[in-house]
Amino acid sequence: MANLSQPEATNLAAGQNPPPEQQLQDHLDDHAFSFSPNITLKKLPHLSDYLQDLQPAGPNPLDHNPFFHPSDGFYVNKSDIVLRQVACRLSPSETIASPSHHLAYIRAGPRKQIFFDHCATRAAIVTCGGLCPGMNTVIRELVVGLWDLYGVRQIYGIKAGYRGFYSIHPIELNPKMVHNWHGRGGTVLETSRGGFDLTKIVDAIENHGFNQVYIIGGDGTMRGAVKIFEEVRRRKLKVGVTGIPKTVDNDVGIIDRSFGFQTAVEMAEQAIHAAHVEAESAVNGIGLVKLMGRSTGHIALHATLSSRDVDCCLIPETEFYLEGKGGLLEFLEQRLKERGHAVVVVAEGAGQDLIPRTTAQKEERDESGNMVFLDVGAWLKTELKKWWDREHPHELFTVKYIDPTYMIRAVPANATDNLYCTLVAHSAIHGLMAGYTGFVTGPINANHAYIPLADVAQAKNEVNIKDHKWEWVRSITNQPDFVKSNQNSV
Amino acid sequence: MANLSQPEATNLAAGQNPPPEQQLQDHLDDHAFSFSPNITLKKLPHLSDYLQDLQPAGPNPLDHNPFFHPSDGFYVNKSDIVLRQVACRLSPSETIASPSHHLAYIRAGPRKQIFFDHCATRAAIVTCGGLCPGMNTVIRELVVGLWDLYGVRQIYGIKAGYRGFYSIHPIELNPKMVHNWHGRGGTVLETSRGGFDLTKIVDAIENHGFNQVYIIGGDGTMRGAVKIFEEVRRRKLKVGVTGIPKTVDNDVGIIDRSFGFQTAVEMAEQAIHAAHVEAESAVNGIGLVKLMGRSTGHIALHATLSSRDVDCCLIPETEFYLEGKGGLLEFLEQRLKERGHAVVVVAEGAGQDLIPRTTAQKEERDESGNMVFLDVGAWLKTELKKWWDREHPHELFTVKYIDPTYMIRAVPANATDNLYCTLVAHSAIHGLMAGYTGFVTGPINANHAYIPLADVAQAKNEVNIKDHKWEWVRSITNQPDFVKSNQNSV
Amino acid sequence: MANLSQPEATNLAAGQNPPPEQQLQDHLDDHAFSFSPNITLKKLPHLSDYLQDLQPAGPNPLDHNPFFHPSDGFYVNKSDIVLRQVACRLSPSETIASPSHHLAYIRAGPRKQIFFDHCATRAAIVTCGGLCPGMNTVIRELVVGLWDLYGVRQIYGIKAGYRGFYSIHPIELNPKMVHNWHGRGGTVLETSRGGFDLTKIVDAIENHGFNQVYIIGGDGTMRGAVKIFEEVRRRKLKVGVTGIPKTVDNDVGIIDRSFGFQTAVEMAEQAIHAAHVEAESAVNGIGLVKLMGRSTGHIALHATLSSRDVDCCLIPETEFYLEGKGGLLEFLEQRLKERGHAVVVVAEGAGQDLIPRTTAQKEERDESGNMVFLDVGAWLKTELKKWWDREHPHELFTVKYIDPTYMIRAVPANATDNLYCTLVAHSAIHGLMAGYTGFVTGPINANHAYIPLADVAQAKNEVNIKDHKWEWVRSITNQPDFVKSNQNSV
Amino acid sequence: MANLSQPEATNLAAGQNPPPEQQLQDHLDDHAFSFSPNITLKKLPHLSDYLQDLQPAGPNPLDHNPFFHPSDGFYVNKSDIVLRQVACRLSPSETIASPSHHLAYIRAGPRKQIFFDHCATRAAIVTCGGLCPGMNTVIRELVVGLWDLYGVRQIYGIKAGYRGFYSIHPIELNPKMVHNWHGRGGTVLETSRGGFDLTKIVDAIENHGFNQVYIIGGDGTMRGAVKIFEEVRRRKLKVGVTGIPKTVDNDVGIIDRSFGFQTAVEMAEQAIHAAHVEAESAVNGIGLVKLMGRSTGHIALHATLSSRDVDCCLIPETEFYLEGKGGLLEFLEQRLKERGHAVVVVAEGAGQDLIPRTTAQKEERDESGNMVFLDVGAWLKTELKKWWDREHPHELFTVKYIDPTYMIRAVPANATDNLYCTLVAHSAIHGLMAGYTGFVTGPINANHAYIPLADVAQAKNEVNIKDHKWEWVRSITNQPDFVKSNQNSV
Repeated sequence: MANLSQPEATNLAAGQNPPPEQQLQDHLDDHAFSFSPNITLKKLPHLSDYLQDLQPAGPNPLDHNPFFHPSDGFYVNKSDIVLRQVACRLSPSETIASPSHHLAYIRAGPRKQIFFDHCATRAAIVTCGGLCPGMNTVIRELVVGLWDLYGVRQIYGIKAGYRGFYSIHPIELNPKMVHNWHGRGGTVLETSRGGFDLTKIVDAIENHGFNQVYIIGGDGTMRGAVKIFEEVRRRKLKVGVTGIPKTVDNDVGIIDRSFGFQTAVEMAEQAIHAAHVEAESAVNGIGLVKLMGRSTGHIALHATLSSRDVDCCLIPETEFYLEGKGGLLEFLEQRLKERGHAVVVVAEGAGQDLIPRTTAQKEERDESGNMVFLDVGAWLKTELKKWWDREHPHELFTVKYIDPTYMIRAVPANATDNLYCTLVAHSAIHGLMAGYTGFVTGPINANHAYIPLADVAQAKNEVNIKDHKWEWVRSITNQPDFVKSNQNSV
Repeated sequence: MANLSQPEATNLAAGQNPPPEQQLQDHLDDHAFSFSPNITLKKLPHLSDYLQDLQPAGPNPLDHNPFFHPSDGFYVNKSDIVLRQVACRLSPSETIASPSHHLAYIRAGPRKQIFFDHCATRAAIVTCGGLCPGMNTVIRELVVGLWDLYGVRQIYGIKAGYRGFYSIHPIELNPKMVHNWHGRGGTVLETSRGGFDLTKIVDAIENHGFNQVYIIGGDGTMRGAVKIFEEVRRRKLKVGVTGIPKTVDNDVGIIDRSFGFQTAVEMAEQAIHAAHVEAESAVNGIGLVKLMGRSTGHIALHATLSSRDVDCCLIPETEFYLEGKGGLLEFLEQRLKERGHAVVVVAEGAGQDLIPRTTAQKEERDESGNMVFLDVGAWLKTELKKWWDREHPHELFTVKYIDPTYMIRAVPANATDNLYCTLVAHSAIHGLMAGYTGFVTGPINANHAYIPLADVAQAKNEVNIKDHKWEWVRSITNQPDFVKSNQNSV
Repeated sequence: MANLSQPEATNLAAGQNPPPEQQLQDHLDDHAFSFSPNITLKKLPHLSDYLQDLQPAGPNPLDHNPFFHPSDGFYVNKSDIVLRQVACRLSPSETIASPSHHLAYIRAGPRKQIFFDHCATRAAIVTCGGLCPGMNTVIRELVVGLWDLYGVRQIYGIKAGYRGFYSIHPIELNPKMVHNWHGRGGTVLETSRGGFDLTKIVDAIENHGFNQVYIIGGDGTMRGAVKIFEEVRRRKLKVGVTGIPKTVDNDVGIIDRSFGFQTAVEMAEQAIHAAHVEAESAVNGIGLVKLMGRSTGHIALHATLSSRDVDCCLIPETEFYLEGKGGLLEFLEQRLKERGHAVVVVAEGAGQDLIPRTTAQKEERDESGNMVFLDVGAWLKTELKKWWDREHPHELFTVKYIDPTYMIRAVPANATDNLYCTLVAHSAIHGLMAGYTGFVTGPINANHAYIPLADVAQAKNEVNIKDHKWEWVRSITNQPDFVKSNQNSV
Repeated sequence: MANLSQPEATNLAAGQNPPPEQQLQDHLDDHAFSFSPNITLKKLPHLSDYLQDLQPAGPNPLDHNPFFHPSDGFYVNKSDIVLRQVACRLSPSETIASPSHHLAYIRAGPRKQIFFDHCATRAAIVTCGGLCPGMNTVIRELVVGLWDLYGVRQIYGIKAGYRGFYSIHPIELNPKMVHNWHGRGGTVLETSRGGFDLTKIVDAIENHGFNQVYIIGGDGTMRGAVKIFEEVRRRKLKVGVTGIPKTVDNDVGIIDRSFGFQTAVEMAEQAIHAAHVEAESAVNGIGLVKLMGRSTGHIALHATLSSRDVDCCLIPETEFYLEGKGGLLEFLEQRLKERGHAVVVVAEGAGQDLIPRTTAQKEERDESGNMVFLDVGAWLKTELKKWWDREHPHELFTVKYIDPTYMIRAVPANATDNLYCTLVAHSAIHGLMAGYTGFVTGPINANHAYIPLADVAQAKNEVNIKDHKWEWVRSITNQPDFVKSNQNSV
């Protein structure tokens, strides 16, 4: 499945001439051949970059941990890297073709030397943005990891998102307090959108004496984290800043997937199942499910592939239209005739340009300054009803619309996501302890790595509608490609 | 999490001198450097290897599929490879160090040319060994994929494992019939152990005119599949043979993980949770859970990491002992004193050498010729009771023993595993259609690849108790390392 | 819990003078006393009422069933009754006070003599109205029961509700076909609202030769069933008609509860839980859940009592208002101040008079001729936002609105409801076989009984806001009683 | 379903001549007739029985509770009773036949006058015996109910069962502490078997100054509670003692059902489902599930009726045998031949006389002095294997044995059981507050009533294998009746 999360994997050879197949055939014996791409290793900011006199605090206390027993090769070092491109294309001359964008990242994990003394470490944890399964597990593991692995005793939770830095007193956290949090949905620290005031936040970090800041949030939050990191660097503070991407939509780039995503897909599958039951129990029944995904359709795509009951999956990455040849209505007409019912899944960001906006709606902006999303599900439900009343005024028809958003977001993480959260939290701790800063931690080809915050804040993980995964959806749904035929004919 | 499944990822640099760190620091800017390891590309058997006159049947019918729309770069070709080693170590000279075992595999996916005409294709599907969540999904997707993608209409299920080839009439399968199978646990085709009779099986394949054989099973089954492939090749039959590894234990090597594993971990977590409730509701209560894993402790390890309620996790890869200093009993004594209860997870293959065997048991062999496994859970329960009665005859004590094996194996796959099953089934079809044979399909670093059957049949995915994942368990449980101190002192 | 479903249980003694307590005290020894209320036994229509020459078809075939072994006392007979009033009040004179409305019903169960020969029986089953967990189980058990217990082989499903009688060909049903239906949500027979055309339906019954008609539906459907029964009687047809109340709202009177209700409460609790997580993870967060219940608030009430996370529960049986002293807004203001978040549950029929209607909406009627319900949840969400913007323009606030309706209705019945469905289906069969007609079957004080269809079609099971159950809700939520103080002062 | 829990409901008319049917027919119009049974009202002990000078403490504080608003008819009084026999048989003379054992119980609920001042009340809560879903909910509701409804502030939890009274310091409880307990399985207070020392317990009650004792446990625990009540009375202490029956087996008599039972049935159904999947995925596969139920088979019976996948259900109330005509083996042979697989459910108390016991086992007694139960599941598994090896040595066969006991017991209560727990806890509080003592509270015909502790401690709720419910099981499974034919021929 992780395959599906790697936009980079497929369009590797774009612009290249395919190698002559026949010629290669003979050489496909097991044998060594050379592989010499040019690789760009992404540099990671380190406190020592701007704190010239910074000295290591000493060896990693894990050396003396009787349980987390450092065997040979336990510590990761600066020269351990993770390759981003795993799927490559051999060139005819038996070497691997080297597209210019081959990338590598520093591997995550504990370092032999650390730059923070456990007594002097004062950590702050904050959660921003919407809910996502696993937030509490990440918080819990940050607390437990700092406490048990590195002996840190000053760990604080910032309440209610960014604004909490300067407006609410931080709460002290300890392992006993967070003991059962991984079984709870939501975030005990509370969260909010907006409230980002750079000066106030960095002032607060200084005033509270925090020197490690763990920021859990989505892409907007990560952009804020970059600014905090830069301001901290500008002020030359010995404060490590790290981001842990939290996006139930799985729209963060570079990393394989973000935590909570698999739990969300499990729940989304249940909603689709309910829609299918409603649809097939009715005469000309349509089950309509709106799933999360403002700019990307990953949840919709994965839930569609997992469920098999979907007749049409609409995502932001590809356009659709209702009327006319090749349109959604024609397709549904056909499905209802053939099967008597149909299920439509629509990601919340799909079709935004189709929905008529009032003048007010055109001007409305959310806290991040983006145009407000309209409810594509409700709009589609209305359009479907109008269409049927117009075309088949005397026939039964029903649309059952399900919006499971808040029932999906609020569940606790499943076992898979809980494990992910543990790994990502511990990796973040190891990174800050080692003096790295301005980074994000996440799996790249299933190996946890450190990635510059700035890169993650800009990268977008979109569904590549030109590659296999989207073809798979279409092979399962057999839905139209929504390419207008008159466009084709031109 | 996939990180945990990659034994190769961590001990890469064993035996190497660590590069001088300080020297590297300066160069860690974003910049190109060369990477030139020697890579061994694993050759894949192809029907044309032994059928000299074999001609392609024509272009892939997906070319004409209106839905599975082949865009540019859609087809995978022979020069598309997947690197196995993603985590590497840079050498001081700014190149990547190249251990001799760098491997690459052919990428899975649809090919432009195929070697089977849809009318002439006659496919057989068989399931062998124990149950695993997702078996029915794999069967379903093989049927639906063959039917919808390649137009195959002759698809047969072999009943009851290998013996079904020669003893039971195959049943015809079609999409309508398998429509809801992905929601059902177990295998509708039925399964059994043993029954492998090479001649009879290949005779049956010939007699029934099968030319594609899909074999779903564990490591024993894969070893049988290798023999079938070799016999087919010896007879120069135009029959493609592929294996789909089914092992709830996740003990198959090379691939990231096998289907059903994540579902199993979810269920295992529930059993551990129940054991924890029983333990903490009693005075000196011990919750004891036996989890699947004869030679590997992956389920035990993952469930322990996911659940957090485990005090001690015992797996086949590492020994343990009961009595004396550093032993399990001493540890539990301590935990009961501190917390009043404890949870022990034991993989079924752990401690087999500790359990006394009767003469009969010493000689007993299972259908695959292996020494029979004794019930480590029941034994441990008895030993714990004896110990307590001896040491604390007047104090309350209770052991609640849970063996959730059959409740875990029998559930349907969750969404994540269902998606995996779809990908692996479709990849297997694409491979056989392209003329490859004697291969297995599975994810390597999250990219589906084709791997020689013989390699998979021998590779073992064990928990590497020297790397991070096992340390993580120990950092969570703080359990002893079961290294006898007197051994140490010698 | 069933206690909560019995509106009749508590206000028994209305209008009576309470008996002198002290006087009774002495007599409260275990001893016999007489109990002589006047009881009205509800007569049940029987085919012989209007078919004078009707003869029994013979003894019950269960006599020869080797498994459903009729022991002594196995058969129920006409003199077996079920008392409706179980909770009574003793009069001072040591007898039980006898309110005039003491009622008794004929007990359900197999009869010694039956009026339908298994060869001549031709049964029709129809499902009408909205979905409810358990519909497929009822259908399955009707088929299996008729087949296995009485040897009936002509069993038909009417598709798509009442209109299916005259517009779609019935489908033949048998045990093999329905084997797994009890694990599926919805209704395989499909359902619809409306389509009731008395003449066409009874004509169709005659034309198809049906002589047993099982009608599964809500109160509107039951009113239709009464008419069908009356028309059948008018035409003097030997056709038994029975109704099985299906109402996820539990709004059918007389019976303890209807099938699917407990499953619905389980699901509703999950939605409330999600709303609570959303609310408590936000700053001034309100979780708003709309639950089913057009005229009755049973689901809202039960889910509130089960969940404990609800701050305010609004049901159709009691009014509420937003503004001013004692209003909802004042209450929520207070809760947000005290706890930082609040959860509101609103039954869909609550507050309908508060929502402004457009002229069109005022005139709109549904298929049953009722005024259309407006979405109280969406309205409330808007009102809450307007209120906060007005009162606290610079403070954070969020309302997360969950409408789980279709996710609740579409699930399969849980074990408890599955068992209920079995009992009710078998009782219905026994009743028709015994020649009764125009009846409904359902539990009265946990004993299945036969009730005249006409009575059930009119009885309404409302939440009695004057009795204990509603007080319980209020004691848990501590919500206001929404009695306007100025009304009080008048 | 509750029908199934009422052994008393069916054999009412045993020993009576059935009334002449035809004669009655004419009178079955709706009309009043008299009903005059002799009813025995079960007296309830009251503190004033032995404390002559006891004066009420005053009016119920609910009078002043703004939320639990006592409307007219809110308070229950001494003359409110609940009839136990709801299903009756009319006598030919138009009256209801009056078997001598017509019983009535005092209704549960709040009383107008109470005998405990909230400041002086000091309550103790204890849980004994094995786990059962809902224990924590009962504890929570006792705490919250005492605190919120009656203003009690001295509430204590006794740890670890009866022995906790005299060996462990009680812990103080308050609403904040128990807030989330209803979502947790097990008992936070911990539990144990045995430890009953009457003198020490009542001494401890006196020493700690407890005047309300809430005892949650099974039948053994209830017998202990009777002794505590009697000793308290003998010492003339103003201490109210009440029992809340906790038996996941549902083996407590008189009451409709006990809490946790429905949750247990839901979980048991899952185990049966897994066994069915295992069985049908194998060749000659048998799924064997052992369910709780030492002296009664209610869980086995209900789960069998709910699941439909069971071929044979074995319960303690009826004997079975393996070998020979009409035996279990013959039956399974037949089923395997017909269907290829079979599922057997066995209650843990079934077949105890069939299992060979060693001398030690014959003498072993548990803490309550009962003969120790042997594992009927493990025994049956072995016997089945031996049988097959003997009869069909060359054919495949497998038995998958599932013992889900601890996975069932440890789950939290579902919504239905949570609601039950609330009602029973509040009723218990109201009863003690009103001065009643030595009673149990529970639903009788769905109305909560107070029952003398001594009666409940002796009553046994067994499956009546002569009535409908058992016939239903047999009609679903078509299993043999295990009546030996040679016995019949004698």
